Amino acid sequence: LQRRYSLGVSAQLLRTEGFIDGRWVSAASTFPVLDPATGHEIAKVSDCGIKEAQEAVNAAYCAFQQWKNHTAKERSFLLRKWYDLIIQHREDLAKLITAECGKPMRESIGEITYSASFLEWFSEEARRVYGDIVPSPAKDRKILVGAALAAGCTVVVKPAEDTPLSALALAELSVQAGIPPGVFNVVPCSREKTPAVGELLCTDPLVAKISFTGSTATGKILLRHAAGTVKKVSMELGGHAPFIVFDTADVDKATCVCSNRFLVQSGIHDAFMEKLAKAMDEQLKVGHGSEPSTTQGPLINSRAAEKVEMQVQDAVAHGAVVVRGGKRLQGSFMEPTLLSSVTPDMICMREETFGPLVPVVKFNTEQEALAIANASPVGLAGYFYSRDLSQIWRVAEQMEVGMVGVNEGLLSSIEAPFGGVKQSGLGREGSKYGIDEYLEIKYVCLGGLSA
Amino acid sequence: LQRRYSLGVSAQLLRTEGFIDGRWVSAASTFPVLDPATGHEIAKVSDCGIKEAQEAVNAAYCAFQQWKNHTAKERSFLLRKWYDLIIQHREDLAKLITAECGKPMRESIGEITYSASFLEWFSEEARRVYGDIVPSPAKDRKILVGAALAAGCTVVVKPAEDTPLSALALAELSVQAGIPPGVFNVVPCSREKTPAVGELLCTDPLVAKISFTGSTATGKILLRHAAGTVKKVSMELGGHAPFIVFDTADVDKATCVCSNRFLVQSGIHDAFMEKLAKAMDEQLKVGHGSEPSTTQGPLINSRAAEKVEMQVQDAVAHGAVVVRGGKRLQGSFMEPTLLSSVTPDMICMREETFGPLVPVVKFNTEQEALAIANASPVGLAGYFYSRDLSQIWRVAEQMEVGMVGVNEGLLSSIEAPFGGVKQSGLGREGSKYGIDEYLEIKYVCLGGLSA
Amino acid sequence: LQRRYSLGVSAQLLRTEGFIDGRWVSAASTFPVLDPATGHEIAKVSDCGIKEAQEAVNAAYCAFQQWKNHTAKERSFLLRKWYDLIIQHREDLAKLITAECGKPMRESIGEITYSASFLEWFSEEARRVYGDIVPSPAKDRKILVGAALAAGCTVVVKPAEDTPLSALALAELSVQAGIPPGVFNVVPCSREKTPAVGELLCTDPLVAKISFTGSTATGKILLRHAAGTVKKVSMELGGHAPFIVFDTADVDKATCVCSNRFLVQSGIHDAFMEKLAKAMDEQLKVGHGSEPSTTQGPLINSRAAEKVEMQVQDAVAHGAVVVRGGKRLQGSFMEPTLLSSVTPDMICMREETFGPLVPVVKFNTEQEALAIANASPVGLAGYFYSRDLSQIWRVAEQMEVGMVGVNEGLLSSIEAPFGGVKQSGLGREGSKYGIDEYLEIKYVCLGGLSA
Amino acid sequence: LQRRYSLGVSAQLLRTEGFIDGRWVSAASTFPVLDPATGHEIAKVSDCGIKEAQEAVNAAYCAFQQWKNHTAKERSFLLRKWYDLIIQHREDLAKLITAECGKPMRESIGEITYSASFLEWFSEEARRVYGDIVPSPAKDRKILVGAALAAGCTVVVKPAEDTPLSALALAELSVQAGIPPGVFNVVPCSREKTPAVGELLCTDPLVAKISFTGSTATGKILLRHAAGTVKKVSMELGGHAPFIVFDTADVDKATCVCSNRFLVQSGIHDAFMEKLAKAMDEQLKVGHGSEPSTTQGPLINSRAAEKVEMQVQDAVAHGAVVVRGGKRLQGSFMEPTLLSSVTPDMICMREETFGPLVPVVKFNTEQEALAIANASPVGLAGYFYSRDLSQIWRVAEQMEVGMVGVNEGLLSSIEAPFGGVKQSGLGREGSKYGIDEYLEIKYVCLGGLSA
Repeated sequence: LQRRYSLGVSAQLLRTEGFIDGRWVSAASTFPVLDPATGHEIAKVSDCGIKEAQEAVNAAYCAFQQWKNHTAKERSFLLRKWYDLIIQHREDLAKLITAECGKPMRESIGEITYSASFLEWFSEEARRVYGDIVPSPAKDRKILVGAALAAGCTVVVKPAEDTPLSALALAELSVQAGIPPGVFNVVPCSREKTPAVGELLCTDPLVAKISFTGSTATGKILLRHAAGTVKKVSMELGGHAPFIVFDTADVDKATCVCSNRFLVQSGIHDAFMEKLAKAMDEQLKVGHGSEPSTTQGPLINSRAAEKVEMQVQDAVAHGAVVVRGGKRLQGSFMEPTLLSSVTPDMICMREETFGPLVPVVKFNTEQEALAIANASPVGLAGYFYSRDLSQIWRVAEQMEVGMVGVNEGLLSSIEAPFGGVKQSGLGREGSKYGIDEYLEIKYVCLGGLSA
Repeated sequence: LQRRYSLGVSAQLLRTEGFIDGRWVSAASTFPVLDPATGHEIAKVSDCGIKEAQEAVNAAYCAFQQWKNHTAKERSFLLRKWYDLIIQHREDLAKLITAECGKPMRESIGEITYSASFLEWFSEEARRVYGDIVPSPAKDRKILVGAALAAGCTVVVKPAEDTPLSALALAELSVQAGIPPGVFNVVPCSREKTPAVGELLCTDPLVAKISFTGSTATGKILLRHAAGTVKKVSMELGGHAPFIVFDTADVDKATCVCSNRFLVQSGIHDAFMEKLAKAMDEQLKVGHGSEPSTTQGPLINSRAAEKVEMQVQDAVAHGAVVVRGGKRLQGSFMEPTLLSSVTPDMICMREETFGPLVPVVKFNTEQEALAIANASPVGLAGYFYSRDLSQIWRVAEQMEVGMVGVNEGLLSSIEAPFGGVKQSGLGREGSKYGIDEYLEIKYVCLGGLSA
Repeated sequence: LQRRYSLGVSAQLLRTEGFIDGRWVSAASTFPVLDPATGHEIAKVSDCGIKEAQEAVNAAYCAFQQWKNHTAKERSFLLRKWYDLIIQHREDLAKLITAECGKPMRESIGEITYSASFLEWFSEEARRVYGDIVPSPAKDRKILVGAALAAGCTVVVKPAEDTPLSALALAELSVQAGIPPGVFNVVPCSREKTPAVGELLCTDPLVAKISFTGSTATGKILLRHAAGTVKKVSMELGGHAPFIVFDTADVDKATCVCSNRFLVQSGIHDAFMEKLAKAMDEQLKVGHGSEPSTTQGPLINSRAAEKVEMQVQDAVAHGAVVVRGGKRLQGSFMEPTLLSSVTPDMICMREETFGPLVPVVKFNTEQEALAIANASPVGLAGYFYSRDLSQIWRVAEQMEVGMVGVNEGLLSSIEAPFGGVKQSGLGREGSKYGIDEYLEIKYVCLGGLSA
Repeated sequence: LQRRYSLGVSAQLLRTEGFIDGRWVSAASTFPVLDPATGHEIAKVSDCGIKEAQEAVNAAYCAFQQWKNHTAKERSFLLRKWYDLIIQHREDLAKLITAECGKPMRESIGEITYSASFLEWFSEEARRVYGDIVPSPAKDRKILVGAALAAGCTVVVKPAEDTPLSALALAELSVQAGIPPGVFNVVPCSREKTPAVGELLCTDPLVAKISFTGSTATGKILLRHAAGTVKKVSMELGGHAPFIVFDTADVDKATCVCSNRFLVQSGIHDAFMEKLAKAMDEQLKVGHGSEPSTTQGPLINSRAAEKVEMQVQDAVAHGAVVVRGGKRLQGSFMEPTLLSSVTPDMICMREETFGPLVPVVKFNTEQEALAIANASPVGLAGYFYSRDLSQIWRVAEQMEVGMVGVNEGLLSSIEAPFGGVKQSGLGREGSKYGIDEYLEIKYVCLGGLSA
């Protein structure tokens, strides 16, 4: 893992400056982007501050005056072209994602395809908005901003500190697609400058809407900032999705590892643990994301790995049993870890983990499982396996989440509304509802017609 | 004006205690409700504090567990019954409104009818929600809460300090209609206790949604409180609606007095001023709201009257001409006032007034009028009069407001979405969109079907 | 059964003349309405012909010019009032239905309640039609015409020959509700005059839309007539619903007798037959509809009873076994009959029966059951019982019908769209889709706005 | 005009055989396709009869079993590919249209672009259908069948007798796009064989839906055929659109020649006639469609030219004045003709013309114009020019047509619903409503969930 992996990305897509008003802009200093698997520096990126952020907001506001007057058909055409370019450069974009966040190439390819589907979908939705709209300049931290641009808004993107390269590559492709200057802006910045830049974007009166994906803690700070100008806000925050396996489940199908809160009913518990352990042995191969055989990459940085290690230690100290893994590896790597005899009060059941940790709680009754699942203050997604029709209905209805996977561990689909309830967020992305977040209803009452 | 007006309301509807969990609850102290026209005390009302507010939230949360499981048809039936009772007691409810806020009886009757139409509309909407919902207990400061109850939510209402009686009378009617205990709660409180009660309602994790109607300043405070638990929020805040009269307008129809920011084009300006002054002479009769001849009541309290007086003084000091009125009368009363030669920088054009003040700015071009109209940080409604089809289209599109009245000074209709853009608020009330504010989309993905 | 049952209906609701343009109109002759249980004459009804039908069409056309200009809110108010009157007179209306079509009182009450719900629903829908509409005079043979009237259409109703009294009673209530003259017209006529009246209604150019509920054979004749003037047409024709019980079903719940084509899987067949026979013994009590204990009334007339008898004879001749009943009783009565060892080629499986005949086919595989169920040229509703989630999905998707009942024998609900595929009809009734049948989309393109 | 124009189309797109189940199929005989401008034969095309039509229906029915099970995403992808190929071959396809129907190349290019937009639009709509569908094999006579294929239906196209080549070229492109065999079939046939083929397609029980564009007379015949199997039917029939110019119109903008029924108010009449005559002089250049300068091609065949000539003679005999043109030219050509002093009883005002004839009726009042405009039994589109806001509202509401152009002579847009009222047709094409014509609503009631 110590060898240096070459990026192998075409020079044109490896961008390291801010992108403001259609121009690449250097900042006074730079910050390093690291390969989380090796700790090696991949690139030095311009560390934009409030000066650059302000310029980007101004540029977006000016560009908005023109962009909103493009017909929906014209916007649709440009977004489709951008989509086509992303699909064409899919391989290179995936390499950037793998390099800066560590995930295996196959997952990176999947992420780019799913992300690009937002552009395809909203290039189509643009022409399906009936009636008048009053869109406005918006700031969006997500990789893809199809809904906003389709609605006629312009955007300023502040990418996550660890992963600016993919957003900058998309900016390059937006130029090639013909998106006008100022419509799409990117201001990368370091962890140090992020709070000030975030505050500026949330308080500047020219910004009409904030869209944020990230931790619940950061989301609350941004909400507070945004209150002062009564901005519209969309939030996709933490999830901590429960994954429940009932006795009636088909154990052969229920072995997905997409959650960090497993609840397994006593009658099926032992069979399930055996299957899952075996699946982890067979399917999880730890390594650098750009190795074809890798199915489990590093965590996003070493702090994240430390946190998982601490959760394992806490669980074991309170009686959990390590069935597989349990140890931290070098750098940001962690052994895929399966814990049994877990109880709801252990830290790993109360705090969300972003790592290969699978804690399993054994439960007896449906009611008990629902109580544990719903005890969380967040509610993004939830999963359960059952073949009992009545139980399926009951549990789907009672799970306090925005999305439910029944006998299914993969939920994301551009046709379905993505988003959570409780402290998991505000608003929905994708689907026919997604564009609403960027529109204002305008009611025009035409009087005096009987004269 | 100094004589004491008797309320003449049936004893059953004159309620002065808090209403929590289906019971009338006394607080440790009381606060007075005054007739703004005379300053006389109408009633002493229980001054609920955080203890009562917390009880109400708990009651609403418990009641929610049952209420959400009522079928939509059952909820619809109860809301319809409540609506029928309100219409039946319309006269008494209007008397309470006139007594506590001063407006003429005819307007109070109109307000009750419009408010009740929310209950009728949402009793019907209840059955038109397709798919799954995850509603939650909510707090609503508005008189009518049809949308929330229709969606299966339960509510805690904190009425405005000056006007608790009408909300309490509605609580009495909800009992008669058979709405279950805990579904609808009212916690009246004094100006002193309001901040603490407001904070509790906005921060308690059991409350899932805040809906507020009031000033932009207070709205921002509540938004900040609500951020900590990522609550859904609806806000109907300040408006300061512009009213533009273009040269092409029919001057005989454009003399509505529903706005505090008049912009009149130079070619029609003098004719318009003459008509408007004459209309004010003929139509505005200042007096106690319960006198049948009254068309202009007092302001809500004497502080409000002082503010208008100060605005007039400021305007005159900067060159405005008093065409009609201009003087403060006794107590909360103010002469209906028409000002000409007003400029956009005067206080009356920058700060919203809630009184009979009509400042008129003369302008030359359409562009100039739009610039003045849109310079405000808020954007609820806007009005304009014109007979030029192209101009109608252009101006309707460019006004930065949520509702536009074209040749029409009255916009409110339950079929149309009510709400504003910019700092005028978040969300829409009424219409087919109104119930969305109280619903969460739940996406259920049913997998494993091909086995 | 030979005793004479008194109607016991208030004189005001027992109407025997045609109802045209708000007036009760006698025809040159009358025709008798018979109690199908006893054959006794209940009433003599005016036998309207093409002269009266033409008058009714003209009246509806004239009334349409005013009715369409009522606001939706006004129409909504009148329909709600009519609904309230029907619910108030529910008992009397049910007596009329029982008297003229024979069904038990409890079912008649249910029918009136369900029918009235159309008026309630569409009185609400009226206000939810957004945008422009071009409605038109329409003829409707169904008892309730809420959708048409809500949309601003006026109607001429031609009731079924055997059952004109309930439609005439509704006309009386429409007068009391304040529905204007000409908006709702009824032209009762005898079996002899029906073809000429039907043709006139389907060919007159003043009639814009035909809505028909009845046999597929008659439906086809009306479609041909309507072709000459390109009328809009809605049809609710024959059903012959299949009812499938799979091995995985809960046999205790699957014993509804709402179908005439039972398909039962071999593994559950014998248990099911036993349960069903027992249920028939216990629950089916043959008698006059107005006897409280009756759960099975007569068929609509003696020809219908003859047809069922013939079907039983045919089935037995080809190998079917009579498990219960099998014999025709006096008049229009027939013993509730359960047949086993039925095959798909027997007449009772190919032609729809309107009587208490339950033929059961035993099958082995899901595919076999679907092939038999889908072999019919009609496809209104279909039912099946299963607890296997995958099977439920597969079968619901593959059944060629407009409505599917899964583990449920009762489908009708005003919130759900009622209607069939294949030769079962055209269009949908009820639900948010129902009003579309009476609306035309009008697209208005407003040009020249940039001048 | 007598010289022979070469087609200049790539051989691959000049197809002359039927296209059934993915194969090019010769019939026993052929029929000639003529250039309407010269009368020269362009191609000999296979004259398919009921044998070939039956094969096509069977193929479509078989293909349907697979095609409906493609995911919407897959169908969407194939339709998009077909769209891309059509745009790529736009020039060649336009040449085929010009060759076989005579219209100028610029118009043919426009037609292809508009037609192709149906495929683009419905490739997108395919993924926006929520809920279950029961689509079925359909026959469509229109060039483009995007909605049907998007919905999962398969189609048999019977092109118009005079113009089979463009439909066959599209079949070739469908192969290149990868549309599976049997999904899209074309059966060209001669005028002689058309009635029998039409009847077969309308009566075969395997066909579930008929969509027809053509004359009202033929539409009625097909409706009668379709009645016997209760098929769903969409019809786009005759229009005879009125074009009203009110005194308040901007005469410089109202000179479009897109209608054959002009109504001009007396105050603007003379100015309008002068402008229109001048516009015809300057803009209409008669010639072969493939000459770049041509703006007016021939009529579809010489019978059509004879009909226009007869209408002119009738009008003149009854008092009309020939302002421009009036004479038939060689073959299928006709001089662009402007008539004044026309009255509503002349044949040209009662029967639709498909040629360059502009009869103008002078009227005095709005009411008079509406009476003349609405006197027609058909109602597809209507146009009017006015700058009076109240008049615009009134006239748009009262015109009995499906589409209204206000100050605008071009209405077609894929985003808007295309279709008429009265005898102009049934159903709507394009827009979000268009796909409904090919879908059946399926209501699934899932019971037994409380167990």
